[in-house]
Amino acid sequence: MHPAPHKPRIVVIGAGFAGLEAVKTLRKTDADVVLVDRRNHHLFQPLLYQVATAALSPGQIAQPTRFILRKQKNCTTVLADVTGVDTTTKTVKSSKGDLPYDYLIVATGATHTYFGRDDWAPVAPGLKSIEDALNIRGRILDAFEQAETCRDLATQKALLTFVVVGGGATGVEMAGAIAELARHTLPGEFRHIQPADARILLIEAGDRILPAFSEKLSARATKDLQKLGVEVLTRHMVKDCTAEGAQIEDNFIPAQTIIWSAGVKASAAAAWLDAAHDKAGRVMVAPDLSLPNHPDIFAIGDTAHVVDRNGVTVPGLAPAAAQAGKYVARIIQARLQNKEAPPAFAYKDYGTMATIGRGKAIARIGSFGFSGFLAWYTWGIIHLFPLIGYRNRMVVAIDWCWSYITKARSVRLITVGKKEKT
Amino acid sequence: MHPAPHKPRIVVIGAGFAGLEAVKTLRKTDADVVLVDRRNHHLFQPLLYQVATAALSPGQIAQPTRFILRKQKNCTTVLADVTGVDTTTKTVKSSKGDLPYDYLIVATGATHTYFGRDDWAPVAPGLKSIEDALNIRGRILDAFEQAETCRDLATQKALLTFVVVGGGATGVEMAGAIAELARHTLPGEFRHIQPADARILLIEAGDRILPAFSEKLSARATKDLQKLGVEVLTRHMVKDCTAEGAQIEDNFIPAQTIIWSAGVKASAAAAWLDAAHDKAGRVMVAPDLSLPNHPDIFAIGDTAHVVDRNGVTVPGLAPAAAQAGKYVARIIQARLQNKEAPPAFAYKDYGTMATIGRGKAIARIGSFGFSGFLAWYTWGIIHLFPLIGYRNRMVVAIDWCWSYITKARSVRLITVGKKEKT
Repeated sequence: MHPAPHKPRIVVIGAGFAGLEAVKTLRKTDADVVLVDRRNHHLFQPLLYQVATAALSPGQIAQPTRFILRKQKNCTTVLADVTGVDTTTKTVKSSKGDLPYDYLIVATGATHTYFGRDDWAPVAPGLKSIEDALNIRGRILDAFEQAETCRDLATQKALLTFVVVGGGATGVEMAGAIAELARHTLPGEFRHIQPADARILLIEAGDRILPAFSEKLSARATKDLQKLGVEVLTRHMVKDCTAEGAQIEDNFIPAQTIIWSAGVKASAAAAWLDAAHDKAGRVMVAPDLSLPNHPDIFAIGDTAHVVDRNGVTVPGLAPAAAQAGKYVARIIQARLQNKEAPPAFAYKDYGTMATIGRGKAIARIGSFGFSGFLAWYTWGIIHLFPLIGYRNRMVVAIDWCWSYITKARSVRLITVGKKEKT
Repeated sequence: MHPAPHKPRIVVIGAGFAGLEAVKTLRKTDADVVLVDRRNHHLFQPLLYQVATAALSPGQIAQPTRFILRKQKNCTTVLADVTGVDTTTKTVKSSKGDLPYDYLIVATGATHTYFGRDDWAPVAPGLKSIEDALNIRGRILDAFEQAETCRDLATQKALLTFVVVGGGATGVEMAGAIAELARHTLPGEFRHIQPADARILLIEAGDRILPAFSEKLSARATKDLQKLGVEVLTRHMVKDCTAEGAQIEDNFIPAQTIIWSAGVKASAAAAWLDAAHDKAGRVMVAPDLSLPNHPDIFAIGDTAHVVDRNGVTVPGLAPAAAQAGKYVARIIQARLQNKEAPPAFAYKDYGTMATIGRGKAIARIGSFGFSGFLAWYTWGIIHLFPLIGYRNRMVVAIDWCWSYITKARSVRLITVGKKEKT
C-alpha cells in the first residue's frame, strides 16, 4: 500500500465534506495521502432528505470517492471499516489491514442518538446514509399502500400519521416534503383513501423550530409548515417510540411512521483516540484542531467540538466541515515544510438556510435574513452547484424543475424498505 | 375494495409488460379492474442490466404502477403478495385479503432457475428485480475495491474474474457492460491494480451465443465481445458454482463474481391454477390464451407457453407480452359485450436486438439483420421511447450521451450489496 516509505504518510478517515476537502487541499503536497472510508462514495448529505422523500435518486447526490480523486496521484482510496487507532505505533487498524501514519485526520462524522433509548432505532429510523434514506422512502410509500387496502379505520389513521421528531433543518425538510407528497403528489392515485388526509406532526423539545435562525425566520418557517398542513408541536418531548406510535408528553399518537432527526452523536473517534470529548461524543481539540496530547492527530467536522479563535462554537454544517478540512491540510503542509503554522482556526459563517417546500424556504446570508420564493430559489442554486459533476447538476436541475411544474416525484420506489426486510 | 358488485370484476396479477398492457386496454371497459403486484412499480426490464452495471438509476427504469394508472378510474392498484387462486370460489388469495374475480389474467412473469441447484443462487445471483440489480452492482464494484487492497496475487486474480453464465441477451449485455466498466470507466482510479486486467468470461452451453439471431449476427456479437476482451466459451457447461469460483467443464475458474443469466423458469402460477405446464413451468394455454378448463382465466407473458395460430412459439420478450396483454383484454371485452371473439392469438414479430457495448449492437428488424453503430443507435432509440414519462426519457438520454462521451458511469454506488449483508 505504501511503495514510497520515505514520504510522509497522511491518513484521512472519512470521505465526508471535512475529509474530502482535507485530501483535496493536500493535492500538491509531497506526501502519500490515504483516504479510508467504509462507503465507496461521498454523500451530499444536505439533499439526503430528498432521496428519503422520493424526489432524487441516490446516484444524483453520491459520487464514488475514488472517481472524485482519480486525478490526485498522491492519494490512495481505501474502502474499509476502521476499527481503531494505535497512537503508540501510529497505525490505523482497519478491516483491510493496518495503515501506518505520520499525520492522522479523523473526520468520521456523526450518527443519530436516541439519548440512551437505542430500542427506538428500529421504529424511528434516522437519516444519515443512503440506506437510511431508501429505508425511510420505502416506509413512507408503503404506509400509503397499506392504508389503501386497510379496512380498519383506526389502523388506517395510524398508517396515515407521520411523526417527525426534531425541529432542526432535517426534521423541517422531512416534514415539509412528506406533506407535499401527501397533499400534492399522491392525490388522485388512490381509490380508497385520500392521501391529503395524512397527518404530519413535527415534534420539537425546544421553544421553537430551527433555533439556528432568528425568531422571525423560525416563525415564518412554522407558518409555512402549517400552511402545508404540518402540525408543529414545540416544547413537546417524545417519551416513547413503539411500532404502534409515539408517546408525546401525555398523548399517545398512533403512527406507523416515525422519523428521527432529534439527536446527533459523534462517531466512535473519541473512543479510538482515548480522547476527551463533550456530551455528544465530539473530541475536544486544540485551537489548531489537533488533539491536545497528539499534535500529529487532527479531528474535524462533526467528530470535533470546536470553539474557534473568535469564541464561536463551530456548527455541524457542511461548509464548516470543509473549512476545517482545508485548515488542517494547511497546518500539515506548514509543518512538513517547516513553515510558520497558520493562526488558530476561525470559522467563516456565510449563512445557513432550510427549505420547507415548493417555493418556500428561509435563509440567512451573513446577517441578512429572508424567506419565501427568493430564499427557496437561492437554496436551490446554492445546493445545486456543490454537487459533484456536471451531469448530476444538470439532472438534479431537470428533476427540480420537473417537480416544480408537475408536483410529481420521480423516484417513488419501494425497494429495500421495511416490507422487504420482514 | 369493490364498491360496485354488479360490475364484472377483472383481476390482473402482475404489473409487467403483459399485465399492464391488459389493464390499459381495459381502460374503457365497464368493469372493475384490480391490478395486484408485489412490487409498487412497473420495471422496464430490458434496461435492468444497465442498473446492474452502474449506468442508470433504478428510478429511471421503474415507475410506480399506481402513478401510471392514476387516470384510469376503473382500475384499483393493490400492492400485495398473491399466495394462491381458488378457482372454485373464483377468488385470488393475497397478503391483503381475498380478491374475487369474474375474469382472471395471470401475468406473473418468470424468475431464474438453477436447474435444481438452488444452492448456487447466493454465489451466482440472477437479474430480475431492482434489488437483484443493486446487489450485482455492489458485488461488481466491491470486487475491484477488494482487489485494490489485496496482496495475495491469486486472490486478487479471482477478485478480478467475472463469470457470466448464459449467452442470451442479458448475459451478452452484462458481459459487455462489465468489460466496458473495467476497460473504459475504472482505469486511472486505482493505484495498485489495473482494472483493465479484469478477466470476463461468458459461458454458453449451446453452439453459439444469441441463438435468437442469425448465425452471422451471432458471430458478429462474439467478435465484438472479444474485441472488448470478453472470453466467449460456447459448448461449455457450468458444473458447479461456489464462493471460490465456477467449475466449467473440467476447469475450475477461481472467480469472486458469478452472474447467472442461464435459466428462466415461470412463476408459481401453474401451481396456483393446478394447470398443465411445460418443463420451464409455463402454463399451457388454449389458442385464445385461456386455460383449457377455465375459459375465465388467462395466462400471458412469461407465465404462459404459447404457440400462436401460425404455429410460432411465442418468445419471452416484452413486445410479445404486451401483445398478449392487449389480446386477452379484447377477448374479455368481446365476451362482456356478447360480441364475436377475436381469432386465435397471433404474435407479430417486429424483430429483436441486443447491445454489446458502446457503439456495438446487433439487430434484426423483420427479416433484415444489421450490426454496429447503426444497430446500437437504433437499440437506443427503441429502448428510450417505451420508458414511461418524459422526464425518464430525457434523463436517460442525457445519461447515455454523457456516458458515450466521457465513458463514465453515473451510479457507481455500493449500497445494498454483498458487503452490507454480511
